[in-house]
Amino acid sequence: MPHMQDDFPLLLSTLYDRSVRLYPDREIVSVEHDRSRVRTNYGETDHRIRKLATAFDDLGIERGSAVGTFAWNNRRHHELYWATANTGRVCHTINIRLHAEQIAYIVNHAADKVIFVDPDLVPLIAPVADQLETVKTFVIMGDQDDERLPGSIAYEDLIADAGEHGTWPLLDERSPMMFCYTSGTTGNPKGVAYTQRSTYLHTISNLASFPMHASDNVLPVVPMFHAAAWGYPFMAVTQGAKLTYPGPDLSPEGLVPLLAEEKVTFSAGVPTVWLGIKQYLVDHPETDLSSMRAFLCGGSAVPRALIEWFATNMGLRVVQGWGMTETNPIASIATLKPAMEDWDLERQLDFLETAGIHTAGLQVKIVDELGDELPHDGEAFGELLIRGPWIAAEYYNDERSSKSFEDGWLRTGDVCKITPEGYIRITDRAKDVIKSGGEWISSLDLENEIMAHPGVAEAAVVGLAHPKWQERPVAFVVRAPGSAVTDADLAAFLEDRVAKWWLPDRYEFIDALPKTGTGKFDKKVLRKEHADLLA
Amino acid sequence: MPHMQDDFPLLLSTLYDRSVRLYPDREIVSVEHDRSRVRTNYGETDHRIRKLATAFDDLGIERGSAVGTFAWNNRRHHELYWATANTGRVCHTINIRLHAEQIAYIVNHAADKVIFVDPDLVPLIAPVADQLETVKTFVIMGDQDDERLPGSIAYEDLIADAGEHGTWPLLDERSPMMFCYTSGTTGNPKGVAYTQRSTYLHTISNLASFPMHASDNVLPVVPMFHAAAWGYPFMAVTQGAKLTYPGPDLSPEGLVPLLAEEKVTFSAGVPTVWLGIKQYLVDHPETDLSSMRAFLCGGSAVPRALIEWFATNMGLRVVQGWGMTETNPIASIATLKPAMEDWDLERQLDFLETAGIHTAGLQVKIVDELGDELPHDGEAFGELLIRGPWIAAEYYNDERSSKSFEDGWLRTGDVCKITPEGYIRITDRAKDVIKSGGEWISSLDLENEIMAHPGVAEAAVVGLAHPKWQERPVAFVVRAPGSAVTDADLAAFLEDRVAKWWLPDRYEFIDALPKTGTGKFDKKVLRKEHADLLA
Repeated sequence: MPHMQDDFPLLLSTLYDRSVRLYPDREIVSVEHDRSRVRTNYGETDHRIRKLATAFDDLGIERGSAVGTFAWNNRRHHELYWATANTGRVCHTINIRLHAEQIAYIVNHAADKVIFVDPDLVPLIAPVADQLETVKTFVIMGDQDDERLPGSIAYEDLIADAGEHGTWPLLDERSPMMFCYTSGTTGNPKGVAYTQRSTYLHTISNLASFPMHASDNVLPVVPMFHAAAWGYPFMAVTQGAKLTYPGPDLSPEGLVPLLAEEKVTFSAGVPTVWLGIKQYLVDHPETDLSSMRAFLCGGSAVPRALIEWFATNMGLRVVQGWGMTETNPIASIATLKPAMEDWDLERQLDFLETAGIHTAGLQVKIVDELGDELPHDGEAFGELLIRGPWIAAEYYNDERSSKSFEDGWLRTGDVCKITPEGYIRITDRAKDVIKSGGEWISSLDLENEIMAHPGVAEAAVVGLAHPKWQERPVAFVVRAPGSAVTDADLAAFLEDRVAKWWLPDRYEFIDALPKTGTGKFDKKVLRKEHADLLA
Repeated sequence: MPHMQDDFPLLLSTLYDRSVRLYPDREIVSVEHDRSRVRTNYGETDHRIRKLATAFDDLGIERGSAVGTFAWNNRRHHELYWATANTGRVCHTINIRLHAEQIAYIVNHAADKVIFVDPDLVPLIAPVADQLETVKTFVIMGDQDDERLPGSIAYEDLIADAGEHGTWPLLDERSPMMFCYTSGTTGNPKGVAYTQRSTYLHTISNLASFPMHASDNVLPVVPMFHAAAWGYPFMAVTQGAKLTYPGPDLSPEGLVPLLAEEKVTFSAGVPTVWLGIKQYLVDHPETDLSSMRAFLCGGSAVPRALIEWFATNMGLRVVQGWGMTETNPIASIATLKPAMEDWDLERQLDFLETAGIHTAGLQVKIVDELGDELPHDGEAFGELLIRGPWIAAEYYNDERSSKSFEDGWLRTGDVCKITPEGYIRITDRAKDVIKSGGEWISSLDLENEIMAHPGVAEAAVVGLAHPKWQERPVAFVVRAPGSAVTDADLAAFLEDRVAKWWLPDRYEFIDALPKTGTGKFDKKVLRKEHADLLA
């Protein structure tokens, strides 16, 4: 069987070099830490990236070593992305919102040799600076050093006299180019090493599935310290698109004028960003966002009403995407099929509100507790498993890998239905789904049905240990003001709405539900405090 | 340095399975050998592909073995493409226009175990059937066998009782899935083995660079026996697009009604096809091709006037592509950059008429005779070298590889300029360029300048051996009727048009130029017959 051994590796530097050559004048706009707006382009930035690459050598950072970043979305962060990727260093994008001890953990785990810090973020990292065991240098991303990080040097000084790097090295396509750590709520963050191959394939495959053009102007609201800003810096450069980096101010007051003035065509961020922007637009009806053609929304479930509002009032398509750090990250996008384009909006929303269809190149399946595959009938639900050439195969240097990766498949921890049309509908988190006698009950579905009762303000349903059925659902209900709803009322209300065996075994009326830091129901607390309720 | 060893291979079956699941109702229209039009879809075709895959087992064709096809663009050829690719067989698409002895050579060289033949093409292969050493079976692509190929079986009988293949095998991504042989004018054809990886990357990268959507309807005029119909069967299926296969009749009378009635949106073929269609449209102004959005034109230089005519009269963008069998095959496409979209057509044509910009993922350079890289200034010209993850690294089992592949670069044999904007302009074939004292003279440019003289009907310029300068240009000129143009006239005419050292050393006036079978000037004959003219 003939083999072709010498074929060329999948390297980001190939995509980079082509675009710099073809689109040297394409703009990069960057809002800096001091809120000033800097205009540069691919060609000028290339000189700085080549100087930065040489500066890595001067700092003694070897190929394969980690370069930490602690920064907003701005041009210097962009330079760091490409100078590391093109030279075989690993960009470790530290989430600035982690607790101090988590920052110390991941920096030590990734063995960062240097950390590049935005000037206004120094106070967040300075307190743990002396716990960072492998870090030899701090570089302040501006033209001044900062005494709060002893021995720090200024970015502009670092690259000022550096020579420009020539031809990029021919790397192994499976060498890592980025470390992204998950911000799990329990335990230490887990790291994923994005390889050249993985990010290259994520870039090209997403461009094939949801086109972006040289004529686009891309503003990633999603942070560059969060799963590579969903890959948009790589996609935009590959296509020669304009890039607009928003810097630290992600409020509607900061974002909307930037979107309008720079004539952004495409953006991406979490639902709360767009909820805020929606309110801003309601309050400022004179705003002109006519340059916008679409934005990707993901990170958590996108409210149907949000998609509807932008479609109806702005003629703007909100495209829901789904993914995880482990999927580098975009794995599915809720685009409509050709036949659906003619439907009315209500019917379209049934699909626009899902996690969408998986990107070409990936495989998805849903499985029950025993790992048996379930049909894609829109009814059966099971844990979503995913595999493909840009899905992580393990956590970096972490014993917890075996729990999440099985026979090449990633266990997503999301419980989903898949419609006959192939749209993934997330119904629960695997840890929240209720295992009753070998069957699963969706806690999320049950909560939504209970909260549909006018006498209910909030409800959380958890599975509690049961001597016969393994687990049975228990509903924790906060009554609406003035309501005297009873368990009998709720049982009667639910009877027509869910299968009989889904009905909660008990209703506990409480004054308030425990919540997590991000405002979600804290079911862990409920399960712990009421563990023996059904025993 | 961490490695991720277990990542998923790049396999066409992944792209295939997803589309069959997501787009089972998407149509495939096929004009059959008897000119009937059959309508089927992805779902129905999948059953047939899975039966065909099992039938390969029944025929004793092992993984890695070659399955020959001798067929038009139709649904059974489509089934063969996918049944081979999905199971790790190698589809050898035999060019039906080769001479009998070349057919025998490539079938024996590829070691085809079976050949699938369209019923109307039996007469072209029957005469050499007994020279095909490895072929055990002929399958006639219809519901009847054919006694002219002894022992042949009918395709429909072959798959009628075959079981349906289950999960496709997890192949090595570097295993071959297609053999394409170049139709070189000298010597035996050279074979290129397209790997799973190469075709996968060609598919996704071209989709990223020149979008195609599920809403498209793709009609590949370019034959499936010619560089995989430029990859369009793979691209269309990946996106869930409708496919319209035109069968044997590629005349304007056959194609235009099909384009109109099936509401084709995108097509691809050589310039002569579109020249014929243009004439048909002039003669039938009532034709409605409003469904068409673009077509790709390549295989030889696309006349500027053709691009202009379709833009002006049909509002249709002719997109010029360039590639070779060795580049699997599309390597560059003449799309406009954003700023150019606002230009007037004349100025756009200066770029639309080039071979375009190289696809993201590839690297190109032009080099002089010593292999030194030349600037991309639109003036310097040298041989085009290309490399990248879907470019062949060698010819299959062929000693001639070393002439064409060097340090991972493919020598294309095309002499080009690259403009500062990055557009590749082909100026000559490497074998025709005139090497004069270490500098190159473009025979094509010189011919075009001479033919601009009103007294000249045709002119061919070749480099002939010269004692001092290695080669010097000699022009062979056919006078226009009634013209008495002299060498002094032509020398004076050229003086302002080309560099002084480009001026031909001699002008030979002859009655007719020797031509090749495809109507090009046969410079080989001129060089041979006049070898000693300057000695």
